[in-house]
Amino acid sequence: MSKDLLNRVLTGDRRAVARLITLVENNSSKAREVLAALFPHTGQAHIVGVTGAPGTGKSTLVNELAKAYRQQDPPPCVGIIAVDPTSPFSGGALLGDRIRMRDLSGDPGVFIRSMATRGSLGGLARATSDVVKVLDAAGYEIILVETVGAGQSEVDIAKAAHTTVVVEAPGLGDDVQAIKAGILEIADVFAVNKADREGVEHTVMALEMMLDLNHASRPALHHGDLMPFESSSLSPDDVPGWRPCICKTVATRGEGVPALLEAIQAHRAYLKETHTLSQRERFRVEDELCDILGHLLMCRLMAHVSPGELAHLVDRIVARELDPYMAAETLLQVGETSLGIGGAL
Amino acid sequence: MSKDLLNRVLTGDRRAVARLITLVENNSSKAREVLAALFPHTGQAHIVGVTGAPGTGKSTLVNELAKAYRQQDPPPCVGIIAVDPTSPFSGGALLGDRIRMRDLSGDPGVFIRSMATRGSLGGLARATSDVVKVLDAAGYEIILVETVGAGQSEVDIAKAAHTTVVVEAPGLGDDVQAIKAGILEIADVFAVNKADREGVEHTVMALEMMLDLNHASRPALHHGDLMPFESSSLSPDDVPGWRPCICKTVATRGEGVPALLEAIQAHRAYLKETHTLSQRERFRVEDELCDILGHLLMCRLMAHVSPGELAHLVDRIVARELDPYMAAETLLQVGETSLGIGGAL
Repeated sequence: MSKDLLNRVLTGDRRAVARLITLVENNSSKAREVLAALFPHTGQAHIVGVTGAPGTGKSTLVNELAKAYRQQDPPPCVGIIAVDPTSPFSGGALLGDRIRMRDLSGDPGVFIRSMATRGSLGGLARATSDVVKVLDAAGYEIILVETVGAGQSEVDIAKAAHTTVVVEAPGLGDDVQAIKAGILEIADVFAVNKADREGVEHTVMALEMMLDLNHASRPALHHGDLMPFESSSLSPDDVPGWRPCICKTVATRGEGVPALLEAIQAHRAYLKETHTLSQRERFRVEDELCDILGHLLMCRLMAHVSPGELAHLVDRIVARELDPYMAAETLLQVGETSLGIGGAL
Repeated sequence: MSKDLLNRVLTGDRRAVARLITLVENNSSKAREVLAALFPHTGQAHIVGVTGAPGTGKSTLVNELAKAYRQQDPPPCVGIIAVDPTSPFSGGALLGDRIRMRDLSGDPGVFIRSMATRGSLGGLARATSDVVKVLDAAGYEIILVETVGAGQSEVDIAKAAHTTVVVEAPGLGDDVQAIKAGILEIADVFAVNKADREGVEHTVMALEMMLDLNHASRPALHHGDLMPFESSSLSPDDVPGWRPCICKTVATRGEGVPALLEAIQAHRAYLKETHTLSQRERFRVEDELCDILGHLLMCRLMAHVSPGELAHLVDRIVARELDPYMAAETLLQVGETSLGIGGAL
């Protein structure tokens, strides 16, 4: 049965893909089994993260990007994962979905899936990463992962993508806010969408200035090492670093989208030529591994702590009799004792 | 020495408070010691989270709120923690700080601190929670915690606050985006700032509609249980639930800020009267405890895994020989074996 599902996913059967994704979302043990079996078939797709603040027109841009990819010869299969980490309330995602569906649903080479938070951000990030694997193994060569919001969610998605597109738009706030949004560090390519609006040159200029500034003070992020902003040239031949390029787009009319697609492909080519693709993949894998590990550790410990014990400790903290760090130490000991182990783990 | 620092913090000595916060940020062992000792003195402050998308004018509103609190009789001491979870690049926070300082620095009853990410969001959330404790113990009766961004960071901050103010502004995007921003569920009070702009009534109406909709489908969040949106009335006497109220403000001119302050105090009073303050405190404590526990578990395991072992596993995952879940299981066993324990933890 699992084997059957695996084989159907590997041949790209859409219904099997949809079914496996549902199993992944429900965190079923069957999903784990199938995912382990299809893992050797992953690693082929170009994972493109698309992110930015609300109101920038990300969803429309992602749709247009998918269409542009599908016009290539030969047309790659495109998977779209729309992740909404901001809310357990899925109204927005559903509405966005319907708009999207109308536009792309006729194309059998495009697979679309929305994911909304059902609990923790960590759980959503893990599920998203697994859905990427499913689509990758099913033969989707381009996987567009769209996130809503501005914050850690973006950084997490960027870690999971090979190329990250940050979408900006004119008139969403003043300069200080643009700096505060602070997702410049994760951008490989900028799309300034709604470029028919007033203020577009101002936005482009502000981004250029930020990139110049970034050149002076390199961020202490993993990605900083992969994207040393050491030159303003785009050519990977004469420079050691990649400077994010800025593409102006009007997604509602499809304007500037082919150039954006080219920039994304140029980044992919750059990563390959400079062997930073494999470096980036290593960072990505390390992050994912640590995340899974933390999750498993908590699950195991919590399986040995009774709700009563936990409630009692919470009571004592609320009463200010015990501080949270001491309570955590106590729980670690409970876990150790009840397992009959005396170690320091 | 630690005792001296503790006593000075408890008497509200500003330099001691600043010093302890720096120790907290550097994660020093001395900070842990002092925090444990001052923990019994916490639990007095009203923690107010202020959050919303970039461009809504949050910082200005927080300043004006602080001023309004300081005009009460007697004036409470106010702590402001400006948290920027979006970026390791602290330019924005610094700039915001200077503007803020000019406005409030003359007042000895106001303490201001900015915090930017230095690594993980989890680390920042833990540090923020500890800084809240420091200010609480030092006698700051009102603690305003401001966050930038829209996403999980907001939800995390909301969990740590007694009252969460979500700041919106007209013209930041279309309706679908407003829904997508999806931080409605965590709001106790809405501030529609920049209310002198066109479209303010539209924004207020959209929020009202969302609250009506929310009434129909209650979110499956902890906070949902604390804020059952069961009535549209604000009075806690005749209704079992709290419906977030919507305050229009023009922060740059201080307009609407006294009404916003009243709404925040009404929420506080409501929480007390319905005994949901202690319920909320329990959820907050439980979250904090689990977070610390996960952090400690990872630290302990990682102390027993060599960088070489980790790198080898990452290599095998990158080569698609091993899937990440199997690799995590392997690491758990490494930890167990090297500690000489055979248990299932």
